[in-house]
Amino acid sequence: MNSQFDFVEDGGVTSPAGFSACGVCAGLKRSGGMDMALIVSDCDCSFAGTFTSNLFPAAPVCYDREICATSKNIRAVTVNSSVANACTGLEGYENSKKTAAITAGVLGFEPSKVLVASTGRIGVQLPMDKLENGIREAAKNLSRTGGSAAAHAIMTTDTRPKELAVSFIVDGKKVTVGGCCKGAGMIGPKMVVAPHATMLCFMTTDASAENAYLAEVIGKAVEASFNKITVDNDMSTNDTVVLMANGKSGVTISSNSPGAALFERAVQMIAEHLARSIVFDGEGVTKFVSVEVSGAANEKDAELCARAIANSPLCKTAWFGCDPNWGRILAAAGYSGAVFSPENVTLFFDEMPVVHGGLGAGTPESELAEILKRREFSVKIDLGEGTACCTIWTGDFTYDYVKINADYHT
Amino acid sequence: MNSQFDFVEDGGVTSPAGFSACGVCAGLKRSGGMDMALIVSDCDCSFAGTFTSNLFPAAPVCYDREICATSKNIRAVTVNSSVANACTGLEGYENSKKTAAITAGVLGFEPSKVLVASTGRIGVQLPMDKLENGIREAAKNLSRTGGSAAAHAIMTTDTRPKELAVSFIVDGKKVTVGGCCKGAGMIGPKMVVAPHATMLCFMTTDASAENAYLAEVIGKAVEASFNKITVDNDMSTNDTVVLMANGKSGVTISSNSPGAALFERAVQMIAEHLARSIVFDGEGVTKFVSVEVSGAANEKDAELCARAIANSPLCKTAWFGCDPNWGRILAAAGYSGAVFSPENVTLFFDEMPVVHGGLGAGTPESELAEILKRREFSVKIDLGEGTACCTIWTGDFTYDYVKINADYHT
Repeated sequence: MNSQFDFVEDGGVTSPAGFSACGVCAGLKRSGGMDMALIVSDCDCSFAGTFTSNLFPAAPVCYDREICATSKNIRAVTVNSSVANACTGLEGYENSKKTAAITAGVLGFEPSKVLVASTGRIGVQLPMDKLENGIREAAKNLSRTGGSAAAHAIMTTDTRPKELAVSFIVDGKKVTVGGCCKGAGMIGPKMVVAPHATMLCFMTTDASAENAYLAEVIGKAVEASFNKITVDNDMSTNDTVVLMANGKSGVTISSNSPGAALFERAVQMIAEHLARSIVFDGEGVTKFVSVEVSGAANEKDAELCARAIANSPLCKTAWFGCDPNWGRILAAAGYSGAVFSPENVTLFFDEMPVVHGGLGAGTPESELAEILKRREFSVKIDLGEGTACCTIWTGDFTYDYVKINADYHT
Repeated sequence: MNSQFDFVEDGGVTSPAGFSACGVCAGLKRSGGMDMALIVSDCDCSFAGTFTSNLFPAAPVCYDREICATSKNIRAVTVNSSVANACTGLEGYENSKKTAAITAGVLGFEPSKVLVASTGRIGVQLPMDKLENGIREAAKNLSRTGGSAAAHAIMTTDTRPKELAVSFIVDGKKVTVGGCCKGAGMIGPKMVVAPHATMLCFMTTDASAENAYLAEVIGKAVEASFNKITVDNDMSTNDTVVLMANGKSGVTISSNSPGAALFERAVQMIAEHLARSIVFDGEGVTKFVSVEVSGAANEKDAELCARAIANSPLCKTAWFGCDPNWGRILAAAGYSGAVFSPENVTLFFDEMPVVHGGLGAGTPESELAEILKRREFSVKIDLGEGTACCTIWTGDFTYDYVKINADYHT
């Protein structure tokens, strides 16, 4: 942790000044748990959003894209879990629009100042009666400490909420950036250039900034965080990352302003923390594995190789079983599409040499197995071709992944 | 079954005239089961082989490629299971060469007339003493009915042997084509153009044919069979398909000869049967799923879409759970890279409509779930863009897949 930053204790989306939030039970989840969140700013926010590049974007994604293109400011985000409102056609789109309109009506501002997000089962229409009641209930419960409830309410197969806030000083004034996210399955972003994300993430700040600058900052942060994780390589229809800036700190940030580096680093830190949290809390995941490819001929090869290893069912099940079966890792590198000479390949598990010159390095299997028993470890492969590198964060593949997904909706 | 063909009862690699085979215990498998097979022709065979395109080809693959490039005829194939002889460097290569030399010495012909194949754990050297004893033992046990024992001996995580033989008549003479294969995990061919395969498969025929013609026939057959299956999308380092033709039937086949169509269809039938058998016997697989994409703009899109669905962990676990969660199928199509308009997409499970115009077709979930309880069913998606199509055969993703692969070597 850079000493220029302070972690906010129990921090999240309501840590920055002027934001309130809450989570309520709208009756969408069969479990009766919280399933609707509202995040609201006291005043207009500049904002930026990135969304899934799936050809089946959910209705809220389509709606939000329009708001991003036409609105200069927003005030609130309404989120529901349990129903994704994806593959729901015109009715689904109208329901997203209605969700925004109801929220705006209850809170007293224009519908164009509300973004919406949904997560859950695809192909099901939102029960609008329940949703409307939920929004009215949520509006009454908004609070400056409601960030944690909001982080809870957006969960689906997540086992824990994911949130963080950091603050830093610019010109003697404190600026805070906070965020929360959800995501455990259907996690596998693939697009590199197009703006998109892999799950739901909401970030807030009390800095003041232009939309274009926010888009630049969030785009870069997403590319280096959410775009580098995979649980099951299944890109979602609903992926959404939103950053809202309400200016309450009195500090204005732009690409050349004094606080820019700190602000960008804060957004990056939160995005990275939340992205890693998604993998740690990935469906059935028991191990966090950092697949680090170096020495690739170019960035494309580095990423191909890292993703092939990070998504290989054989590698992921071997990690679950603490089986140092490095042949599976080399095989995945070998079919990844990356170009390299097998005899130049080096592989490490954390600090332990595994493969040297394309052959087993002679480290006893028992010692390698010890590394794989760690809750978190790195698989470091050097292709010996060039200087490009890429890191992908992934998890292992377990009985619980199968269990969770073989009967998700029952 | 085309009535021009006869199935050979209990048919396999020794069904064609002039071939003998056997399986023996060389002591490579801890279980003590058969782990070495020998397939031998009474006389010289023309032949063709296709191999993995993995950048880490196993030693036997490297050796066989040289034999394919330099030998006009072969007489035998020596196969071992349990040890893949991959990522074993020069020592591994020399061991493959020695395996061929020992076999040739024992059987009394030149080393250049022996192909070798290995399957099993990567990164382990072959125990050559055991192997040599195994070859001597095998040579004594060769028999005209030994095809089945050979099919057993090459198994690793397979639960059953896979073999088939068919015969047909050309100019009043009977021609037989037989084959056996192994494969259950690390099944995921990706290359479309380069000659390669996905597992070990040995095919024999008593037809006479030129090597170039055999290469053409086997290449086409592999493309439409082994190249269209996936269990875990993990392309192996050892994939090998070999076709040997010894001419004992007295029938010569070439691309323009009378028997050509029957011969090519017979090879294709056997390749297709064996490829499907691999998926049916895939690690942990309880369901055979035929993912059939039609209406794609071009063949590349059709294949991208079919592979994305066939390899999606979320789709595969849903099939295991008989969960008609079609949103996962559409999401996979949507991130596959294929280009299409969501509102034109149609989806069927076998005969049952699931999605129409990108939206749920209204078939009750209970009826869809009934389809998914079948041992074999089709997922048919039409993209509504053009006329290209592609079918990929895959299995479901189960607890047993995790179990088998979390402790493969212990």
